[in-house]
Amino acid sequence: MSTVDVRATAAPVRARDAGAVLERLRGRAPLVQCLTNLVVTGFTANALLAVGASPAMVDEADEASELARAADALLVNVGTPSEASAAAMRAAAHAAHAVGTPWVLDPVAVGPLTFRTRLATDLLTKGPTVVRGNPSEVLSLAGAVGSARGVDSATDSASALSAAFELAARESTTVAISGAVDYVTDGHSVIEIGTGHPLMTRVTGVGCVLGALVAACCAVEESPLLAASAATAVLTVAAEVAVESSAGPGSFAVGLLDALYSLDAEILDKHLAARAR
Amino acid sequence: MSTVDVRATAAPVRARDAGAVLERLRGRAPLVQCLTNLVVTGFTANALLAVGASPAMVDEADEASELARAADALLVNVGTPSEASAAAMRAAAHAAHAVGTPWVLDPVAVGPLTFRTRLATDLLTKGPTVVRGNPSEVLSLAGAVGSARGVDSATDSASALSAAFELAARESTTVAISGAVDYVTDGHSVIEIGTGHPLMTRVTGVGCVLGALVAACCAVEESPLLAASAATAVLTVAAEVAVESSAGPGSFAVGLLDALYSLDAEILDKHLAARAR
Amino acid sequence: MSTVDVRATAAPVRARDAGAVLERLRGRAPLVQCLTNLVVTGFTANALLAVGASPAMVDEADEASELARAADALLVNVGTPSEASAAAMRAAAHAAHAVGTPWVLDPVAVGPLTFRTRLATDLLTKGPTVVRGNPSEVLSLAGAVGSARGVDSATDSASALSAAFELAARESTTVAISGAVDYVTDGHSVIEIGTGHPLMTRVTGVGCVLGALVAACCAVEESPLLAASAATAVLTVAAEVAVESSAGPGSFAVGLLDALYSLDAEILDKHLAARAR
Repeated sequence: MSTVDVRATAAPVRARDAGAVLERLRGRAPLVQCLTNLVVTGFTANALLAVGASPAMVDEADEASELARAADALLVNVGTPSEASAAAMRAAAHAAHAVGTPWVLDPVAVGPLTFRTRLATDLLTKGPTVVRGNPSEVLSLAGAVGSARGVDSATDSASALSAAFELAARESTTVAISGAVDYVTDGHSVIEIGTGHPLMTRVTGVGCVLGALVAACCAVEESPLLAASAATAVLTVAAEVAVESSAGPGSFAVGLLDALYSLDAEILDKHLAARAR
Repeated sequence: MSTVDVRATAAPVRARDAGAVLERLRGRAPLVQCLTNLVVTGFTANALLAVGASPAMVDEADEASELARAADALLVNVGTPSEASAAAMRAAAHAAHAVGTPWVLDPVAVGPLTFRTRLATDLLTKGPTVVRGNPSEVLSLAGAVGSARGVDSATDSASALSAAFELAARESTTVAISGAVDYVTDGHSVIEIGTGHPLMTRVTGVGCVLGALVAACCAVEESPLLAASAATAVLTVAAEVAVESSAGPGSFAVGLLDALYSLDAEILDKHLAARAR
Repeated sequence: MSTVDVRATAAPVRARDAGAVLERLRGRAPLVQCLTNLVVTGFTANALLAVGASPAMVDEADEASELARAADALLVNVGTPSEASAAAMRAAAHAAHAVGTPWVLDPVAVGPLTFRTRLATDLLTKGPTVVRGNPSEVLSLAGAVGSARGVDSATDSASALSAAFELAARESTTVAISGAVDYVTDGHSVIEIGTGHPLMTRVTGVGCVLGALVAACCAVEESPLLAASAATAVLTVAAEVAVESSAGPGSFAVGLLDALYSLDAEILDKHLAARAR
């Protein structure tokens, strides 16, 4: 199926669904274990705390699998892999898969870099609930596993949508593509989220934070399609709120945490409706 | 002695004492070596700089013991341990103990996770000047070393106070418990600090920062009981100041650093007096 | 040549030159690979993004040399070295040197600590385009390689200038010294930059950020002397802008990112001219 065919089936995320997931997230404060890169640990933990989840950043291999069994969700982000952290990621993903803990794979910069591309390809076999990446990463991961498509420097999320659709169907997972418009697909349906702001690309770790929020939402919503869509709506609407009081990327990052903290169904509804028009 | 008995002996921290420690800290700018977790390194260093101390974050084993001999105080926080960092923590604690550098043990998440529980239990034998943790961590550390009390999910600091009192007496150390009310005990006396704000729990690393401030205060105050109480008063009063201009956890974290920088005896006195009423 | 002799030859940085480098940097968005310390990864990436560059923080040895060949510039900062990251630094510096990628060495805390002093001394043989450090670090690196001058606790940048001048000439590199006044020398000429603010010393990683900005500017300016001077002017003027709306080091760090984002030739000109008067 071509990108055009797939895009034609996309339905906009519903504010009601996103609001319901956010409310459950705040009510249950799920424990989200994060094995993530060294650049974004603090920002990721702060975003999870702001939105109402409980982060745990543990990357020693034995502890990582102990915690993966106890956590409500797991994030594995391969942004700064090492031999030790790669072993912890494999152990945690294996444990999560074994006991049914939902988990998210974020294949940061997969494609041009060898070590992480092998790692992410291996992790993909451990049944991630959701794969979240930018268009290049999704295209690379799709190609590395199945076809010979390989790395693509595309930056338009729509251009990676058919690869995401096929990847999701083939691996029985859900794929979320970040871009000016975000798409989430489980290989059957496609949801699109049009909110957000270019300043999101001027702060390190905003995409990584989205992966963590997807994991948090998977802890309180059984449909990965809805969970990933809700997380994307929550983050991109919070970004629109934060921009209103920002003087640049520094104050935007601070405002993003404040906005995640104060976000509610009414704000979600207002911003999502404005984009749908 | 029961928790009720111990609590009945608690005296409130005195603004005069906290102010005197803060003034000495600013005057001497002690070098505080931090072996801490990967989530909070930047925030911890910034909090130490804001309050007037000189942070050094070194975690290679040989360098860590070189520096522990030269530093004015040492923080060992087991939040994200690895084989390599655990070796550095042991070496640094050993060196600090050997030459009399005051050092603080922060047993983050000790109890449910095996690797760090063994590490913290081992570090406890190296004579920490102060142990700082939340109620669960203090209960776990007390149980892991002495009795069979084991892990407890208590979140009320008062409930861990008698365990802290016994732990301090048995190990000849001082124990600081963080919570809505903070307690510090050396196994003889108890000081309580009632200032603070719930937003402190929505920013990652505020507890870790407290451990670092306790270490800094130990560099300029010989009584660990007074040093830990002063550090707690300084941080919790700064939090109350920061809340006044915060729109959520993002701006609160920024404001906390600003408040640590501008804190003085008058502000300490005003906030501590308001709680005592 | 004595410090006094060298200082007498110093010319002030020209706003026109700094503005031209900044404009090229924004136009080309160079990929800057950073092997830096664990305390400042996020802040460094955010500063590069704010100013218009594209950061990549990769520290696995194989990936680090893959990326050093593809990147437009490389930063190697030895602030928290480990066996693994030291190997990655050596591999990346070697690869950069081999293919002609400009690279910057930041010898954080070299002198009193053995492991990193050996590492930095070794890295110095791999032809860094620029060495950036504070006076003590520059004096230590100069002594460790050539003379027996050894460690010096000097904090006045002028006092390290003749050592920097000799080091630059001997190693065919450019040396940038940070301080109240900053100096850049290639062993022939000296440029001085007098902008900046004391709050820069109350935020962790501002010096490390300068190293990253020097690398970014080396990607778009062939003269290392001009590149390092422009980077220093950009950061120190942004600091002066940030101070105007700061309440302390927390809001200053946020404002610094905002100021790097909105800086232009007019602001550079105004602030540099005010100092020259």
